[in-house]
Amino acid sequence: MRIAIDAMGGDHAPAQIVLGALEAARQWPDTEILLVGDEAAIEAALDGQSAANLTVLHASEKIDSDEEPVKAVRRKKDASMVVAGRMLKEKSVDAMLSAGNTGALMTTGLLVVGRMPGIERPALTTVLPTMDNVGVLALDLGANMDAKPEHLMQYAVMGSIYRSKVEGIERPRVGLLNVGTEASKGNELTKAAYGLIEAAPVHFIGNVESRDVMQRNCDVMVCDGFAGNILLKTMEGTAGAVMKEIKGAFTKSLMTKLAAAIMMPGLKGLRDKMDYSHHGGAPLLGLNGLVVKCHGSSNAAAVKNAVRQARTALQAGLIETVAAEISGKEDLS
Amino acid sequence: MRIAIDAMGGDHAPAQIVLGALEAARQWPDTEILLVGDEAAIEAALDGQSAANLTVLHASEKIDSDEEPVKAVRRKKDASMVVAGRMLKEKSVDAMLSAGNTGALMTTGLLVVGRMPGIERPALTTVLPTMDNVGVLALDLGANMDAKPEHLMQYAVMGSIYRSKVEGIERPRVGLLNVGTEASKGNELTKAAYGLIEAAPVHFIGNVESRDVMQRNCDVMVCDGFAGNILLKTMEGTAGAVMKEIKGAFTKSLMTKLAAAIMMPGLKGLRDKMDYSHHGGAPLLGLNGLVVKCHGSSNAAAVKNAVRQARTALQAGLIETVAAEISGKEDLS
Repeated sequence: MRIAIDAMGGDHAPAQIVLGALEAARQWPDTEILLVGDEAAIEAALDGQSAANLTVLHASEKIDSDEEPVKAVRRKKDASMVVAGRMLKEKSVDAMLSAGNTGALMTTGLLVVGRMPGIERPALTTVLPTMDNVGVLALDLGANMDAKPEHLMQYAVMGSIYRSKVEGIERPRVGLLNVGTEASKGNELTKAAYGLIEAAPVHFIGNVESRDVMQRNCDVMVCDGFAGNILLKTMEGTAGAVMKEIKGAFTKSLMTKLAAAIMMPGLKGLRDKMDYSHHGGAPLLGLNGLVVKCHGSSNAAAVKNAVRQARTALQAGLIETVAAEISGKEDLS
Repeated sequence: MRIAIDAMGGDHAPAQIVLGALEAARQWPDTEILLVGDEAAIEAALDGQSAANLTVLHASEKIDSDEEPVKAVRRKKDASMVVAGRMLKEKSVDAMLSAGNTGALMTTGLLVVGRMPGIERPALTTVLPTMDNVGVLALDLGANMDAKPEHLMQYAVMGSIYRSKVEGIERPRVGLLNVGTEASKGNELTKAAYGLIEAAPVHFIGNVESRDVMQRNCDVMVCDGFAGNILLKTMEGTAGAVMKEIKGAFTKSLMTKLAAAIMMPGLKGLRDKMDYSHHGGAPLLGLNGLVVKCHGSSNAAAVKNAVRQARTALQAGLIETVAAEISGKEDLS
């Protein structure tokens, strides 16, 4: 199989992306890795290292993290991300990965790779951290701001397939993000979506509350892109503020610094749990090919993890299974 | 002034509610406090203590925390909460307080107290914790699940008046909860609301993100009830999970317990910051009278704080100012 990696996207690009790609190429000799981006910068990061199954493909432009997505994707035909997307569209690769501008990646998915037939709105997913480290796959996180009930139903189906096929979770529990667990709760959107998801071929457990996400109250959480984005950023902000406060308390005096040293091993687990990057990547679901979004802060290990996920998804026939299900050929309940 | 307190609502009712009411009565002899609820239970909690300005009004029923709001308020005409609401409607008191079922209190506000003329949808507010302890007044937190742009604009106006009149914040900064700070971001609702709030007589600072709420990125945050509820519960859930994990790390061994003892004073501040109850209460805005919701876990100190807030609001003429503004008579920008 062939996987294209956008070498220029992410906070630590190209160095960490390139190193992660190299490690992945060495670990999986059956997988051809294509690093797309500025050739000179990639070669500099490789620093003479190589692998038989690692190729560099030059792209003269890149999309920055603060660029307006649609404009950037339309104008920069030779941006590393767009080139990788085009290769996926043309089937010269089987999957693409990027840690770059999320909006631009979604736009590349929509405009370059293309939607899967039958899917009106592809979804941005993420794995929300949970205390048991398994995570909740949440979608949509912001690709589609004004979702319709049918979109939420399709998210439920796509998320279910991903968690069972790629992560091996049997009968993943699908929850609908809501303001209460009773079936009657919510806004017009969730009330209408409830019945549709109930009738869909998934293991629907009803409404779930954002309060319980970190206890893994479900395996797949569906929501409209606005609410999902608010949830994600609230988690990040709250955890960040609490962690910062704790750090402050730890560095107050010599005594607290000593105490902190004793506590550190115990608290390292918490930091790891809250760290999104170790999950590797999250797929954009509903596209006509496998596009994996890596966290912006991805390091080499995260990139390698994302390649592992992409391999698993390709081996499991993720895209084909989703396509078959959306066209009504498979039952997952 | 006269304030009715629902003695039967809240996790620690009636004991802590009654004690808080007693403390408030003793602190402010000019304020008549009416404790509404089961007379025998209230007298038992008072345990012989009294104050000249504290009266008990018997109500034979109470609304439980898990009751369906509309049904409960309609059927239980003699519930403590409903009786207090009726007294406010009839102007025999100037304000009412309750730590009981939030949905039932909102319903009591709508069906018993009544809406303010010109307000289509009253809002549930809360003070979100911030690291500087000042808090962000957020509305709506779940009274109105399918808000229209005009509702968000009215929330901006009401929230502004509350923070300036009752809390003395000059030119409170109003932010619109959104998925990004650029004006073009968001769903159809926020895009339409943006222009309306911009034209409203408030100090609008544009879109704000939930990630930055704990840094007090604004003084008044407006949002639809669905998104606001998701945000609130995500904050609670994330902070709770992180705190629990830290507690676990602290109690692992004798050494970590010793370290914890050293850290405690520093971490107590964090716990206090995250503790909603010390803010006392939050008003239901847009009703034809002052209704203050206390946190369900309110203790005596929180109840007393809520009385303090209600007094300030009454002295500042909160309801009259909101009514004047909504009917177009005042400029707050």
